[in-house]
Amino acid sequence: MNIYLAGPDVFLPDAVEIGWRKLGICARHGVTGHYPLDTTIDVSAADASLKIFKACEAMMDQCDAIIANLTPFRGAGADPGTVYELGYMAGRGKFCLAYCNEPALYADRVRKFMQVERRDGRLVDADGLTVEDFGHHDNLMMIHALELHGAALVLPREKPADIWHDLTAFELCVAMAAKRRAAARPTS
Amino acid sequence: MNIYLAGPDVFLPDAVEIGWRKLGICARHGVTGHYPLDTTIDVSAADASLKIFKACEAMMDQCDAIIANLTPFRGAGADPGTVYELGYMAGRGKFCLAYCNEPALYADRVRKFMQVERRDGRLVDADGLTVEDFGHHDNLMMIHALELHGAALVLPREKPADIWHDLTAFELCVAMAAKRRAAARPTS
Repeated sequence: MNIYLAGPDVFLPDAVEIGWRKLGICARHGVTGHYPLDTTIDVSAADASLKIFKACEAMMDQCDAIIANLTPFRGAGADPGTVYELGYMAGRGKFCLAYCNEPALYADRVRKFMQVERRDGRLVDADGLTVEDFGHHDNLMMIHALELHGAALVLPREKPADIWHDLTAFELCVAMAAKRRAAARPTS
Repeated sequence: MNIYLAGPDVFLPDAVEIGWRKLGICARHGVTGHYPLDTTIDVSAADASLKIFKACEAMMDQCDAIIANLTPFRGAGADPGTVYELGYMAGRGKFCLAYCNEPALYADRVRKFMQVERRDGRLVDADGLTVEDFGHHDNLMMIHALELHGAALVLPREKPADIWHDLTAFELCVAMAAKRRAAARPTS
């Protein structure tokens, strides 16, 4: 089973090392991880971002599953680039898994960034926009996409000390993918 | 042509009215908009969010195209729920269009929320995570997905006074979809 390892991990200073750790965990569970950090692309070239996109899309197309890191990124919700990839893989009918190292509910996450109040029966933010209040950890589209196209979002019981480097929830996703692979294997 | 109208518009206090305005613009251009706000769902019911998800996914599956509103939502980037839908439609091979009423570049948007500095050749945010600096308006995955699976992100020359209610850029997307529909129509 080939698994696309999506996440804002690629934006970390030690993005390459995190990638190797993730690939190692996949290998230990008997699956093959694909980490979208192509170190051969010259990021200063004019067409660098297009090359990165094409490399990511080709990698997704050759994978059977995705494990997305939906840990909040520069705000209350997941990294949009990662979420795009989760949507793309769901649209392609691939097996969708994700984890999030922030166990707070979405409405509580928003409260960390701005005032949230109940107005006319709706929970609204400082701009008057509705704050989703279904008891989920992020936007309902990702939450239910995972349930229906893979497995429910994996969360830690307690927030890890280092949300960007703790791979416990990630490894649970890998184990779920490996289990599915084992179940799909012919018995004879 | 059936077009799925994605966006955080559904979180506005006047979400229903915006939907009607968008559907009216689509009708004027000879295409059919589908706005994902099902007012028949009881949002207080225990399974409300699952029903909303299923209704949105069914609506996307019956559409030929998407017009996504990628105006920044609670931060520097687009609404993750909308981005999930853009990815889903790209994965399904649908025609992908989007607009954004914030013409600032992504790196400049991040600067509004936190300190950004250049360190070891990388542009980094206050948490030390890389800030994409390719001269795009949002994460490269959405920018190039639009170019390759539809048309380039539509932006206003100047930021509209009301970013949530100005539909000029939206209408440009509708016109592009209608043009594509006309081009695809048999001439005989």
